[in-house]
Amino acid sequence: METKIGQIEGGTVTSPRGFHAGATAAGIKKPGDSRLDLGILFSEEPCVTAGVLTTNRVKSAPVLLCRERLEAGRGHGHASAIVACSGCANASTGKQGLADAAEMAALTAEGLGIDADDVLVASTGVIGPLLPMERVRDGLRHISLSDAGGHELARAIMTTDTRSKEIAVTVDAGEASFTIGGIAKGSGMIHPNMATLLAFLATDAAVEGGFLSLALKEAADVSFNMVSIDGDTSPSDTLLLLANGVAGNATIDGRSELAGAFQEALDLVCIQLARSIAGDGEGATKLIEVTVNGAASLADARLAARTVAASPLLKSAVYGCDPNWGRIVAALGKSGADIEESSLDIAIGETTVLKGGAPQPFDEAAVVDHLKRENVSMSANLNLGDASATAWGCDLTEEYVVINSQYTT
Amino acid sequence: METKIGQIEGGTVTSPRGFHAGATAAGIKKPGDSRLDLGILFSEEPCVTAGVLTTNRVKSAPVLLCRERLEAGRGHGHASAIVACSGCANASTGKQGLADAAEMAALTAEGLGIDADDVLVASTGVIGPLLPMERVRDGLRHISLSDAGGHELARAIMTTDTRSKEIAVTVDAGEASFTIGGIAKGSGMIHPNMATLLAFLATDAAVEGGFLSLALKEAADVSFNMVSIDGDTSPSDTLLLLANGVAGNATIDGRSELAGAFQEALDLVCIQLARSIAGDGEGATKLIEVTVNGAASLADARLAARTVAASPLLKSAVYGCDPNWGRIVAALGKSGADIEESSLDIAIGETTVLKGGAPQPFDEAAVVDHLKRENVSMSANLNLGDASATAWGCDLTEEYVVINSQYTT
Repeated sequence: METKIGQIEGGTVTSPRGFHAGATAAGIKKPGDSRLDLGILFSEEPCVTAGVLTTNRVKSAPVLLCRERLEAGRGHGHASAIVACSGCANASTGKQGLADAAEMAALTAEGLGIDADDVLVASTGVIGPLLPMERVRDGLRHISLSDAGGHELARAIMTTDTRSKEIAVTVDAGEASFTIGGIAKGSGMIHPNMATLLAFLATDAAVEGGFLSLALKEAADVSFNMVSIDGDTSPSDTLLLLANGVAGNATIDGRSELAGAFQEALDLVCIQLARSIAGDGEGATKLIEVTVNGAASLADARLAARTVAASPLLKSAVYGCDPNWGRIVAALGKSGADIEESSLDIAIGETTVLKGGAPQPFDEAAVVDHLKRENVSMSANLNLGDASATAWGCDLTEEYVVINSQYTT
Repeated sequence: METKIGQIEGGTVTSPRGFHAGATAAGIKKPGDSRLDLGILFSEEPCVTAGVLTTNRVKSAPVLLCRERLEAGRGHGHASAIVACSGCANASTGKQGLADAAEMAALTAEGLGIDADDVLVASTGVIGPLLPMERVRDGLRHISLSDAGGHELARAIMTTDTRSKEIAVTVDAGEASFTIGGIAKGSGMIHPNMATLLAFLATDAAVEGGFLSLALKEAADVSFNMVSIDGDTSPSDTLLLLANGVAGNATIDGRSELAGAFQEALDLVCIQLARSIAGDGEGATKLIEVTVNGAASLADARLAARTVAASPLLKSAVYGCDPNWGRIVAALGKSGADIEESSLDIAIGETTVLKGGAPQPFDEAAVVDHLKRENVSMSANLNLGDASATAWGCDLTEEYVVINSQYTT
């Protein structure tokens, strides 16, 4: 089938039909603060839902609640709403934290006239403190939902992010046309596994639950799981995808003609959000894109690309526009991926600096010019196989330290 | 047997009998630079030698040379000298690099009147460039050795280190008395596995080769392998131990009465050097000591302690004296070690902040005061078993970024 994927200008998580969102400044970030910090995503129609949650052994109360509600549907669940807040992670908060997350869901359900079990919860912010529930309760009464509310919700989940991350794409496949939209927040404590702190995706496509889960896992593996900002995996990482079927297409499953186009569009949405997260890492001035080709296996390609993108030494060198390519070699070597030094090629931008393990004379000014760009790319060919992967990171600046040395004080 | 271990004031790698060292400013760091950057450690008597080398898949030419010479003696070898330089790592330098390392060994052997095979080589510095061999050759002609030369050699291996790392201890066991001395350099690209960039140890004890190797591996596991500065493992990591037997004791092996005292003294030397490296990490203002108790296994205890000590978010918080203990929880959770959130205790200094997974009210001013100290300690009890481990790291400061964004330029 001929399909066409197009990005919607100004698209967001409420671009798919039947989704509404809204947010308010509840004072969770700080009492009296005017920044949005509490919001809701809602679908009129019940949704099939998939999620990918943090692999940290310590899990926030909202993550535990999502896991339970997603597992009730054997890895994928049913939900028609997400309630999310920023400023407090509701993590390491024990039984009170679980009760608070459940109450957030219950109050949201009550306001929307749906079942409490059909609400998922996400929180991001400082680990340790309890949610200021008085302000959460009050805030929930002041959220009004709209078609364009995705923009507000995207801002309401930001912590140290400097800009919101939003996208929507439409898949046009003749009679059947559907949209996938998403928002995400990132900035700190970002490291595979799994993902960004929070990413919410919505689609009006009708999708079978098992396929939805697999498709989301696959999309996460090439996007959020390929981002590193600081090597710290958060206990709050939550990626959720709600599919409400309003588009009226024949339900997509693994054998559908549309399965490939759905996966492609979902990958595109996730990669775009993941890139935005990397480029807006705490203190970052640049996005670093690392591609590894010629790896012996896909696992090796991913491991090698992620390790280079996560190296503090390389990140510092990119910040300083220092063409210190030896740090790429060192990171590849420590990654654990299969590497033969004598067959290694490395390029920064378009400039080859190492070929078959031998340093090449290169135009240093051209490399420095490339390193001065906002999007810096580097690539390695291991010449051991045909697996490839791309990872995204950001430069390491003094500002990262400033932000994180004074986070709670 | 009653043994007594005492530290020698001003002790260094040449404190054990029969070891001499010296260094020169050969201009490897920079032509004309007056800093020492080339040096030799030499024992009049042939030595039994053990080594622990980098686990990075990319290995510097000196590491490959050491591996070959150590393996000739099945994991432990024979050597009577080490030649080392700083400013150029001689890594990622292909065949020319191997030839240069071999030539360094050969020239050193010639000057000392020993076999070229009995010289080990180590280099640290920028990855990629070839050694300036003219200056190395010239420099080797200008090194004079002395009993006190360990101090010079310790300075000659420094790169971004701000101070040299040296220690020696004497084990007094009645008639048999022997000394272990060591020097090390660290600062950047420091992460287990294995070790610091370079550490050279010498002892006048007579030790059997197989036991020497095992003892060194065990000492590295509780010292250098428990240090992280930036998560980057160098292709140059080299830990060498030379034992010349000049003390005249009955050769120590695994069944000797003195085996325990030897191990204890060796651990002490390695831990002291490892702590010095952590405290002098690039840009660091503080040493962070992380102890994990109650782990289900030793591997878990080590993994958990190392992960906390290496967390950029925690390191930034310590720099800013921010009592953000949630980051300790998050790091423990992501470490991969077995953790039960509900049984977790955490203390910063002497102050308990989490008990059985529940946040405790605590004296914030006291914790901030502790975080202002030059030696910051934190501990976690997982309450799942009886394994313990201690890891060392340093705070993350703007200065780390400044140093590493302008390293080669």
